[in-house]
Amino acid sequence: MDKVKRVERVIVMMRVLCGMPNQIIPYSRFCEMFQLAKSSVSEDVAMIERAVKTWDLGEVETVTGAAGGVRFRPRGSKSATLSFVQTLCEQLNAPERMLPGGYLYLSDLLAEPKLVRRMGDILAGPYFDQGIDFVLTMETKGIPVATMTAEALHVPLVIARRASKVYEGSAVNINFPDGKGGIETMSLARRAVKSGQRALIVDDFMRRGGTARGMIALMAEFGVCVAGLAFVLAQDGEALIADLPVHPLMYFKTEEGRDAMVVRPAPWVEQPE
Amino acid sequence: MDKVKRVERVIVMMRVLCGMPNQIIPYSRFCEMFQLAKSSVSEDVAMIERAVKTWDLGEVETVTGAAGGVRFRPRGSKSATLSFVQTLCEQLNAPERMLPGGYLYLSDLLAEPKLVRRMGDILAGPYFDQGIDFVLTMETKGIPVATMTAEALHVPLVIARRASKVYEGSAVNINFPDGKGGIETMSLARRAVKSGQRALIVDDFMRRGGTARGMIALMAEFGVCVAGLAFVLAQDGEALIADLPVHPLMYFKTEEGRDAMVVRPAPWVEQPE
Repeated sequence: MDKVKRVERVIVMMRVLCGMPNQIIPYSRFCEMFQLAKSSVSEDVAMIERAVKTWDLGEVETVTGAAGGVRFRPRGSKSATLSFVQTLCEQLNAPERMLPGGYLYLSDLLAEPKLVRRMGDILAGPYFDQGIDFVLTMETKGIPVATMTAEALHVPLVIARRASKVYEGSAVNINFPDGKGGIETMSLARRAVKSGQRALIVDDFMRRGGTARGMIALMAEFGVCVAGLAFVLAQDGEALIADLPVHPLMYFKTEEGRDAMVVRPAPWVEQPE
Repeated sequence: MDKVKRVERVIVMMRVLCGMPNQIIPYSRFCEMFQLAKSSVSEDVAMIERAVKTWDLGEVETVTGAAGGVRFRPRGSKSATLSFVQTLCEQLNAPERMLPGGYLYLSDLLAEPKLVRRMGDILAGPYFDQGIDFVLTMETKGIPVATMTAEALHVPLVIARRASKVYEGSAVNINFPDGKGGIETMSLARRAVKSGQRALIVDDFMRRGGTARGMIALMAEFGVCVAGLAFVLAQDGEALIADLPVHPLMYFKTEEGRDAMVVRPAPWVEQPE
């Protein structure tokens, strides 16, 4: 094989890194691919680190140690994040989104891949270094954004169901108060998670936190520790649920005496760098 | 601004392209970013095209015409696709995956982001040039793979529900035979799709095609044309449903007199280049 030129190498490396978010790729892999010494690969990586940083396209880092290598994280700057979330707020504050009964139509935004990808990347942000083993969501609307969050963190997605299904094998079922005076059921396959793991809960929407508390109770049944909760949209006021940190992209407030919501970026999204 | 060097430019361009699958990015965008003439950007793109092709990392193409530019499609070689699907088959053929009653446990694979991303890229393959407007799936298990397919095609995902929900606004409900002698209901928000659009149906699993035919009937109610159906796993034998092409990654066959399935790659996946 002819020597692969630097321009070609960085193209290939960037593509590989983008396709493997939050995974540490050993330098040796690139050394073998390109039949190159580690020092040359290091120089390539340094250029990629710099370019990605300069253009605000995520984070490329070298991780040292025995299991070391290079890692890409899809984390943008605070200002880019805020401006994305502000655009979402503008869309959600459009009057035609209000449905009878004071509900907000957001199913379309929650199923637009380029938006949920971005939401997932942002929601993953506070949890990159938290040793998360899997993302947990409750069916249905939050699944796309939870999928993207799980991909950003490079962990499996686990989906709790409203009822146990024969094709999921034996399951643990719990009943939980839905926050509206009723009782709901949540089910998870026994083989889906293991005792001692750490979960990040991701969902699209939180009003009173009934479903979120249900998921926390379900995880307790499995001996799983919940590291935090991330939502696309949550009711203003809930900073903690069951003493766990809550990271919504946006908060909503229902206006007194009106069937209208006002949506704004959550404080942690607004904080400067 | 100092002139941006080629190595830096191709890193940035590759990252932008990977993040925007199946979208045509005008050359002018890169010309502006780098304060560069179109001829230099063309040379950069040619290098990226070549590198991505050489290393089997997808497809970068120049699209000519008024709305022209450069486009990335996450399409791998036939041989890489087949070997990925063969690995999936091996995992699914493991005896511990069989559940009582002849069911196969595949929820874990369907929620592993790095696997569903790859599945979605492959399922999108035959439909890149088919003018698809959205991907339709029926809740729940197929949502992650349908999300990834929609992202690869750069179209919205639309999720049919088992019952209409107040937060989705007015909806169209249909009843359909589930293929097991019963009747099921499927619901879709009125505002989710428009008459005259073209849909690709994506789902995780098809046995008798009841749900698939339900989705086709639902689309007929909306005046939407279905271009085809893509599944992760389908029962052997169904080459067409309602005269529409069917693209499963894998076929399964239930062994006579045994509670066991045999899973193998679908013929279109096995075909040589």
